[in-house]
Amino acid sequence: MNIGIVGGGQLARMLVLAGYSLGLQFQVLDPATDACVGQVAPLLQGEYDDQNRLNAMADWAEVVTFDFENVPSAAARILEEKVKVHPSSGVLWATQDRLYEKGLFWEMDIPTPVFATVDSLEELQEAIAKVNLPAVLKTRRLGYDGKGQQVLRTPEDIEPAWQALGSVPLLLEGFIPFEREVSVLAARGRTGEMAFYPLVENHHRGGILRLSRAPCPLPELEQEAWDYARRLLERLHYVGLLAIEFFVHEGRLIANEMAPRVHNSGHWTIEGAETSQFENHLRAIAGLPLGATTALGPCAMLNCIGSLPDRAAVLAVPGAHYHAYGKAPRPGRKVGHLTLRAKDHDALAEGLRRLLSLVGYSVEEFGPIC
Amino acid sequence: MNIGIVGGGQLARMLVLAGYSLGLQFQVLDPATDACVGQVAPLLQGEYDDQNRLNAMADWAEVVTFDFENVPSAAARILEEKVKVHPSSGVLWATQDRLYEKGLFWEMDIPTPVFATVDSLEELQEAIAKVNLPAVLKTRRLGYDGKGQQVLRTPEDIEPAWQALGSVPLLLEGFIPFEREVSVLAARGRTGEMAFYPLVENHHRGGILRLSRAPCPLPELEQEAWDYARRLLERLHYVGLLAIEFFVHEGRLIANEMAPRVHNSGHWTIEGAETSQFENHLRAIAGLPLGATTALGPCAMLNCIGSLPDRAAVLAVPGAHYHAYGKAPRPGRKVGHLTLRAKDHDALAEGLRRLLSLVGYSVEEFGPIC
Repeated sequence: MNIGIVGGGQLARMLVLAGYSLGLQFQVLDPATDACVGQVAPLLQGEYDDQNRLNAMADWAEVVTFDFENVPSAAARILEEKVKVHPSSGVLWATQDRLYEKGLFWEMDIPTPVFATVDSLEELQEAIAKVNLPAVLKTRRLGYDGKGQQVLRTPEDIEPAWQALGSVPLLLEGFIPFEREVSVLAARGRTGEMAFYPLVENHHRGGILRLSRAPCPLPELEQEAWDYARRLLERLHYVGLLAIEFFVHEGRLIANEMAPRVHNSGHWTIEGAETSQFENHLRAIAGLPLGATTALGPCAMLNCIGSLPDRAAVLAVPGAHYHAYGKAPRPGRKVGHLTLRAKDHDALAEGLRRLLSLVGYSVEEFGPIC
Repeated sequence: MNIGIVGGGQLARMLVLAGYSLGLQFQVLDPATDACVGQVAPLLQGEYDDQNRLNAMADWAEVVTFDFENVPSAAARILEEKVKVHPSSGVLWATQDRLYEKGLFWEMDIPTPVFATVDSLEELQEAIAKVNLPAVLKTRRLGYDGKGQQVLRTPEDIEPAWQALGSVPLLLEGFIPFEREVSVLAARGRTGEMAFYPLVENHHRGGILRLSRAPCPLPELEQEAWDYARRLLERLHYVGLLAIEFFVHEGRLIANEMAPRVHNSGHWTIEGAETSQFENHLRAIAGLPLGATTALGPCAMLNCIGSLPDRAAVLAVPGAHYHAYGKAPRPGRKVGHLTLRAKDHDALAEGLRRLLSLVGYSVEEFGPIC
């Protein structure tokens, strides 16, 4: 079966590497000639809205999917005229704008921070009166990894934040003084079959995910997260893998955002779950039965930002696995990740301490296992 | 790091798929324009002794390895003048001829069937007087999957066997009425570090491996197999993964043959072991630390011969994983394998029954779990 992927970063690369053994073939569209998926699959170089490229992919593929959500939804619609597209252009449309995303959370009775739209400095002042400080000002579209966001703590922050972001439509959200951040990954197949991964605990710094641990031992919140995921998957007639990020505040889940694709907080599943998120996304969009999502043991995932740690030192850590994305090192760029699968929490804590040192993260800050 | 592979079949393909995440790049030499590795890595099309191709590979790669052992050892020597080659031309030489292989087993005090060389019908008669019937007549070189072998049970079998095989140097071996067949996989790194996988039980039919189960619950034989593997790895200054196949006869191991490469009986390690045989072979030849070889649970591996079973039906079996090699179906050809990882023996037996039916193997014959 031929699968087209729009977007050729590390997520596409890991999809491809998971898919060959399923008997799938791939073509990937990306504007960059050096997109890292090109090392492992045929790359169609072109803009995401290049009609010729999109038509060529639609002619070749039986299903098209995405490695990131900010593909113009018009491109998805062009593809949909000829070929199955998962997730659909409608899903892309709903998740590309924080306003619609929030609206969906509200509609599905999923708690989310209070919010207000902001299109002028005046509206920002009105929004603050409604939301209160501290608050977070975000661009409605094209934000990722903390980009396009400003935290407003005092009235003095208002004017600079407006200057920084005010050229595009914005959303002001109440700031949640969360105790922790978690995410849930869930997949839905073409027949409506669903599968839910264990809850993941995430640690961000500078807006970028640094560390994930799974399974996160909060069974009640896990049930709640699975319930929210189920509502969204069914509401959207979703096919593929969906990720939802939550704040945990006073023992409750508050939805922050969702991503209609495989997700950084699910990379631990490559070695850590019976079936990886990449394989389950492909199974879902290809109309195949979903695989079990059970964790094989306590796991951790560390992002390598900017550069890769010493490979031999990483591989000397028992249970550690190394994932290079084939990308050139550059400050702030995700160039790889490490996963750690251990037999128990003590072994996980010991291995994690060693890996944290190797990637240059503070052991004091990230090391303690809850 | 750039890795060259000579031979572009499914073993090369699975090496490549295991290697990208380690940050390795690949080039593969194969005479066939449609070698299945070509779907996942750059293919240099050319004969194994094509000096230009070998020189180009040697210039590009830091290490060269093999996906099968019958590469002309002269080709390995050409490569060795310019680049690290693992396993070495000396190892290839020793394992390409059953006479030298047997000699090595004898030298290392590893039990192996009694044998005699045969270069004429007269010598065959003399060899039978020494070895006794039943016996197995084998070509010294280029045998695999039961090809180049004839079992001699009565004196009437002698003449036809000689007619079938007598044009090349032969070996006559005593026939071992074995209770079971097992194999051991072991890896040795550049620094001499070694790692040993759990003992595997193998079931052949028509000379082709059909089913492997691991770990095989024979701890005393496992220790013995690891000891034999250690002797060979050290004697050969081996770097990479080595597989040894044994008969079990009257509670003892009798070495049948070895393969200086990743091995069909190790395919269960992709999902079933902490580190797959493919990753550990690459770690070894790249000078990286070896990974743990622990089994993650009871596992089985089923070869798909000639054609692939229904993919959706396979993936509906809990714990089943599907491995297509991207090869055209053809009678007798290995076109894929299935692995099954289960939480206990009951779950393994249940899943195995379903998979056996799907690949068309007799559940009565292969199903019972020892």
